[in-house]
Amino acid sequence: MTKQVICNPDEPVVSTPNGKLRGLIVDGTYIFRGIKYADARRFHMPTPVKAWEGVKEAIIYGPVCPEIQTVQPSDNYTVPHVFYPQDEDCQYLNIWTQSPDPERKRPVLVWLHGGGFATGSGIEHFAYDGENMSRFGDVVVVTLNHRLNVLGFLDLSGYGEEYRYSANAGMADIIEALRWVQKSIEAFGGDPQNVTIFGQSGGGGKVAALLQIPSAAGLFHRAVIQSGIIRERAGKEKGPDMTELLLRKLEITPERIREIEEVPYYRFQQIISDLGPHVFMDFGPGRDDDFYRGSIFEAGICEHAKNIPVIIGNVLGEFCQNFAVTCDDGRKNSWSEEKAEALIREKLGEPAEEAMELFRKAYPGNRIQDLLFTDRVFRPGTFDYLKARAQAGLKNTYGYMFKMEQPVYGGTLPWHNAEIPYVFHNADYIEPSYIPGITELVQTIVCECWCSFAEKGRPGAVGAPVWLPYTQNQHAMMYFDEECEAKSADSEEELVNFMSQHPFKMIQQDRSVTAEFFGGGPRV
Amino acid sequence: MTKQVICNPDEPVVSTPNGKLRGLIVDGTYIFRGIKYADARRFHMPTPVKAWEGVKEAIIYGPVCPEIQTVQPSDNYTVPHVFYPQDEDCQYLNIWTQSPDPERKRPVLVWLHGGGFATGSGIEHFAYDGENMSRFGDVVVVTLNHRLNVLGFLDLSGYGEEYRYSANAGMADIIEALRWVQKSIEAFGGDPQNVTIFGQSGGGGKVAALLQIPSAAGLFHRAVIQSGIIRERAGKEKGPDMTELLLRKLEITPERIREIEEVPYYRFQQIISDLGPHVFMDFGPGRDDDFYRGSIFEAGICEHAKNIPVIIGNVLGEFCQNFAVTCDDGRKNSWSEEKAEALIREKLGEPAEEAMELFRKAYPGNRIQDLLFTDRVFRPGTFDYLKARAQAGLKNTYGYMFKMEQPVYGGTLPWHNAEIPYVFHNADYIEPSYIPGITELVQTIVCECWCSFAEKGRPGAVGAPVWLPYTQNQHAMMYFDEECEAKSADSEEELVNFMSQHPFKMIQQDRSVTAEFFGGGPRV
Repeated sequence: MTKQVICNPDEPVVSTPNGKLRGLIVDGTYIFRGIKYADARRFHMPTPVKAWEGVKEAIIYGPVCPEIQTVQPSDNYTVPHVFYPQDEDCQYLNIWTQSPDPERKRPVLVWLHGGGFATGSGIEHFAYDGENMSRFGDVVVVTLNHRLNVLGFLDLSGYGEEYRYSANAGMADIIEALRWVQKSIEAFGGDPQNVTIFGQSGGGGKVAALLQIPSAAGLFHRAVIQSGIIRERAGKEKGPDMTELLLRKLEITPERIREIEEVPYYRFQQIISDLGPHVFMDFGPGRDDDFYRGSIFEAGICEHAKNIPVIIGNVLGEFCQNFAVTCDDGRKNSWSEEKAEALIREKLGEPAEEAMELFRKAYPGNRIQDLLFTDRVFRPGTFDYLKARAQAGLKNTYGYMFKMEQPVYGGTLPWHNAEIPYVFHNADYIEPSYIPGITELVQTIVCECWCSFAEKGRPGAVGAPVWLPYTQNQHAMMYFDEECEAKSADSEEELVNFMSQHPFKMIQQDRSVTAEFFGGGPRV
Repeated sequence: MTKQVICNPDEPVVSTPNGKLRGLIVDGTYIFRGIKYADARRFHMPTPVKAWEGVKEAIIYGPVCPEIQTVQPSDNYTVPHVFYPQDEDCQYLNIWTQSPDPERKRPVLVWLHGGGFATGSGIEHFAYDGENMSRFGDVVVVTLNHRLNVLGFLDLSGYGEEYRYSANAGMADIIEALRWVQKSIEAFGGDPQNVTIFGQSGGGGKVAALLQIPSAAGLFHRAVIQSGIIRERAGKEKGPDMTELLLRKLEITPERIREIEEVPYYRFQQIISDLGPHVFMDFGPGRDDDFYRGSIFEAGICEHAKNIPVIIGNVLGEFCQNFAVTCDDGRKNSWSEEKAEALIREKLGEPAEEAMELFRKAYPGNRIQDLLFTDRVFRPGTFDYLKARAQAGLKNTYGYMFKMEQPVYGGTLPWHNAEIPYVFHNADYIEPSYIPGITELVQTIVCECWCSFAEKGRPGAVGAPVWLPYTQNQHAMMYFDEECEAKSADSEEELVNFMSQHPFKMIQQDRSVTAEFFGGGPRV
């Protein structure tokens, strides 16, 4: 990359209300890493970081929250990960900006990372690096770490007033980070009155949760939910009570509840890992009567969320990647139409003909075999969310689908996480994403849509059609592809509803080879 | 980077004697990651990996050996680290080559990572990436993970014949990897008859150990020791017996010794961490009567090592970095000569005048203040090693010093690890190393010296003076700098000996700010 870096005792130094921070200038972009934004006692609410004397270094990322299981992801090729030392002292954020001029007042984008509410960090993916987005969009990019899993979301509220909010300690950390942004981002050239929160997967879920947390009102002004909403089902089964289970295994009685603050973290790891392979992901914000009242489907749209413009969307091939697949020859694009149709009939049975008809109508540019690899995890929830806001009369919700086929394995529908490098203008250094000439074009459009939305609350980009909001009368949808298209989502929604009524076993990526080799598991 | 990557079901696939492996082609370089080279039961010798059917993926790095403490290094800015999931199943290697043509027979360079014998991995530093070196030198680069700390070097030989070599299990893994190279590297375009081992810090120590392990004879043909030898002192104190201590704490009696194979790893972490902040680094190969007989200072030069050409050297400012320093204004280059001399007199007292005279003779191009930041950890050992081989009549040992000032903090002597990006031709993407126009030149010369040494057993590069061996009569030394110089090491040796007799407290990097902020500690 041959980057020119400035890192001197007195340059670049920024004065925040709490004290001075020294970062880096990399090819003209100012970078500040590992800024402590809060302190927190385990299971308690965070407190703002204290002021300091002198200049603190901000050139190394801060530790990330301990994870119950740090899985070596079998998708580390398509989604390159940064693993990093873990520590309960994890409330750190990172900033990329084009200048620390307090007069400049640029739009601020605060990224909330994925990994459910259980894993991940603000630097977990290579693609989360904010340098290129900051430079391209002249925006201030912030990424952050916060408490996760047991540390962020264990409900101890039944065991004492001091633990009243422990089921939302992780969300409270994020809110504390947003308060830090309100107080300090001006010093980095950002506008505290124009803050966009955006996130993907678990990060999308966090954005959705913040829209339903009254105490977050005023701390952000636009919101982007990427692959963050799963359709809620009535009467879904509730898991075991994690708190009760942990206390029993730890042999901590209610009278000695404070001992849980001293339990070595590995004990949580052991107990939860013993419960089964995926239980470590079973964490999320706890509904209560004041902090978080539940999703928009449970609690209706919170008042402060109504005026917040929202982008919501997801990715065509989510959780249905067919790279590394051993399905047939592993290359879906080599199949003839006849062969693909036969496979679909085999999978779907009688509804196959109607499904194919609906698919061809919704995706006229795609091969019919893509029906077999099409997301059914996030798409129904995305439509539910769009409809809920439309039905409330809101006209500030924008829907999208990222459907650009990726070049790996002779052509693969975009996977869970695949749009992130485009959003961050980082697509050209994520190995399997790069198509010369095309990648540059598509990431320019996607990144500009996000940045213009951050600036004005309406997404749009040169080279793309007009992106209208999804309203009760106008079901507009942006389809990001080698050529972007904005059109009615009706035919796609018909397909999604039909497929929801006719479930079939998806052709999933066969991870057997990789899994055998690495012991890795899937990441959410 | 906008790299073009090929990763298809059938390309690139290489047939090894054990089975087929599928990797990547990145801008023309063939890359295979996470190749399993051995299996091992805990505390037992490794066994070669078994053959398999079909094609295994080699696109994701394999897990790294568990560490007693994964420290978040406070030097993560000057030495960017890759942290990665840890697993006892850690015998994996990675290959970079320009083509997998079995006829091509390129020199093979096998990198042994640093971190003492206790931490690290074959991908621990960004700079370990072999792509650029392979492309620049048309060589095959291999990096690898192996057992470390308790898992690699705990001496259980007193508790049963099956544990006879447990104190060298980590070294045995490396030897097994070198056997894998012998058997399989031809399939990747490498020459099994021309293998160079190279390593830095602990990795240099591993290279030195392999030169003293008879069963490694024939598995490699040249060796490079970078910052790997510390002067041995007679009568140095021996630490506590780690084996006895662990068994006592674990309450394992000799009759139940096998239970140590099932102890959860975190128990080792706890016990050793409780012993003190640096005890987790106290591991190394165990001397015995057949596997490893001791260093060349203890056991003389092993027969097989005599015909192996060796490069040995280190870095000027090792463990004396002054970036982030709060010594004076933090910028040594801003001090006047008078000020610097006064500081030296204050530190050294009476011997200051002679020290300064010797320093000016040895380093006429340097500022006098650099005397305060000059390595005294590895340099005496480097000279001892050169002299030991010279005194044995060998004429195939090459000495170097990497002394190029780095641009960070207004000019900093090169730190421990600073030469690695130059060796791997990766200097231009390690942030604080880059000086436009100069970096390209110096890394071309350093990397070519390593590659030509790998090819012919004699180091040399276009643009650099002739690099002669250090012999009994000719004390030649290569000084890598913005302009490289090859000259007699006599005046430098005089300085090193004088300074060894007049120790003073070095002006170390003051890590207080960073340490307070991150809780990080130094790495070896």
